[in-house]
Amino acid sequence: MAKQKKGQKVAHEPAVTASAEQTADGGLRELLRVPAGPVDLTTYDTRATAGFSGTKEDGKLALENLGAEVSDWQERLFAEGRSGGERSILLVLQGMDTSGKGGVIRHGAGLMDPQGLKITSFKAPTPAEKRRGFLWRIRQAVPGYGLIGIFDRSHYEDVLIARVRELVTPAVWSKRYDQINDFEAELVASGVTLVKCYLHISPEEQRLRLDARLDDPTKHWKYNPGDVDERMLWPDYMEAYHAAIERCNTPQAPWYVVPSDRKWYRNWAVTTILLETLKELDPQWPTADFDVAKEKKRLAAT
Amino acid sequence: MAKQKKGQKVAHEPAVTASAEQTADGGLRELLRVPAGPVDLTTYDTRATAGFSGTKEDGKLALENLGAEVSDWQERLFAEGRSGGERSILLVLQGMDTSGKGGVIRHGAGLMDPQGLKITSFKAPTPAEKRRGFLWRIRQAVPGYGLIGIFDRSHYEDVLIARVRELVTPAVWSKRYDQINDFEAELVASGVTLVKCYLHISPEEQRLRLDARLDDPTKHWKYNPGDVDERMLWPDYMEAYHAAIERCNTPQAPWYVVPSDRKWYRNWAVTTILLETLKELDPQWPTADFDVAKEKKRLAAT
Repeated sequence: MAKQKKGQKVAHEPAVTASAEQTADGGLRELLRVPAGPVDLTTYDTRATAGFSGTKEDGKLALENLGAEVSDWQERLFAEGRSGGERSILLVLQGMDTSGKGGVIRHGAGLMDPQGLKITSFKAPTPAEKRRGFLWRIRQAVPGYGLIGIFDRSHYEDVLIARVRELVTPAVWSKRYDQINDFEAELVASGVTLVKCYLHISPEEQRLRLDARLDDPTKHWKYNPGDVDERMLWPDYMEAYHAAIERCNTPQAPWYVVPSDRKWYRNWAVTTILLETLKELDPQWPTADFDVAKEKKRLAAT
Repeated sequence: MAKQKKGQKVAHEPAVTASAEQTADGGLRELLRVPAGPVDLTTYDTRATAGFSGTKEDGKLALENLGAEVSDWQERLFAEGRSGGERSILLVLQGMDTSGKGGVIRHGAGLMDPQGLKITSFKAPTPAEKRRGFLWRIRQAVPGYGLIGIFDRSHYEDVLIARVRELVTPAVWSKRYDQINDFEAELVASGVTLVKCYLHISPEEQRLRLDARLDDPTKHWKYNPGDVDERMLWPDYMEAYHAAIERCNTPQAPWYVVPSDRKWYRNWAVTTILLETLKELDPQWPTADFDVAKEKKRLAAT
């Protein structure tokens, strides 16, 4: 499980040579965090493997090897939440169709105890949801204390598809960036650590993946003819993503761009970012609020 | 992964010698299903390993080996639910403290894709919940189409602790058995397949497990002095379980008694029951509702 930075030239990868320890201590977040200022996703390599050197097989094994550690930290956070702690994590996954939001949940979150996860997949809002503010349904899905929430798409769709497809007027969506920042600041203040990941694939990789879905009858249910319509608006979506990431990339709720043409890297990277986040929160096993010796006696008497 | 019935004498285990295939085809459910009529849990061996012969290590490996198959079937059910299907599964887990409801979810459900799970842990009802009927909060947690719901405790607590602790009058709890049967019949009619498992441990095993929690500071958060108080009412709880299982053991919503003194067997058994249930539902990959060849051409043109 070597974690040295692979020698690919990617504009936004700082020239850090991370040792395994450094990466585990926060290094990958440093490598993938979007710097403040204008965002141009075309300068980010979708096939990069920043922070990891090794083969695909190495990467799959490295992910499996994270399982014990990440689920141990997850349980500590859960225990803290059951014992008066008021912290949680919210992983926001965004990306174009086939970028692998579901794959990250299956393979990364799947390493953890499902009891400690709160996963919400946001589809087009229902008529009832539309009659409320766009953040209404998002608020319902915020993870409770001790939980790791995962959003498969999110409130960002309200400045992505809503903007590209003109589902609302520019006067409406243009106000939403500030509304999102206010909302996220409120979450952070209430104990939620936000981890926002954009799963970055190339249009060529998307074509391959959609084609593979069409070739495999067990994957037809994942395909929708509308996927090609959206695909044809790729530049518009990129423009919307640039604005969303740039305007909502705050120090307390930063964006990460995760190169995602390589599925194994994507899964490892998001899981590593989660692990680093958990370790930074450093939840401790709650101490007993009862007299252990006395309880042992009571128990022995039964 | 031998699955022959172990030669333990347990009153309610029919003398079936199940081959691996027979067990996988529904055999374990046959072995563990509670027969109609009066229920006496003292006649069920808590250390039995019905349907499995092998060591603890074999059992852990057998569980791991179920992972690929159970998650494949889970995805088929999920795909069906996304494509117009109206079926789901609801696993109800009941058992005394430390019987391993959480362990089954962690180790059994943990093999599946968390996106397809809806897990609800029921604690003591809040004042707001108490002001509604006891089934109100249960209905909120019923899994949607294509999902596998898991209840860690359930509406059965309303005829268990509510009866033992006299949280309501006998006139109230005595009516609940019929209300539960009506509710469950309604669920079944609406496409929910119910799998109700009682995780059966001995009082001796519970003492060992509570003692182990007291000895391990990383487990103190799971311990509550009230656990010993509940433990002292063991015979009352058994009486309440007998009534609940007997009166709510319907052909469409049967109870299974899962011997749970051996954690590895318990996890394997519940997961196997889920797998058998999925295979019986036999969800198929949805067929394309679009023209595949046409879509391939459209995609190639982008």
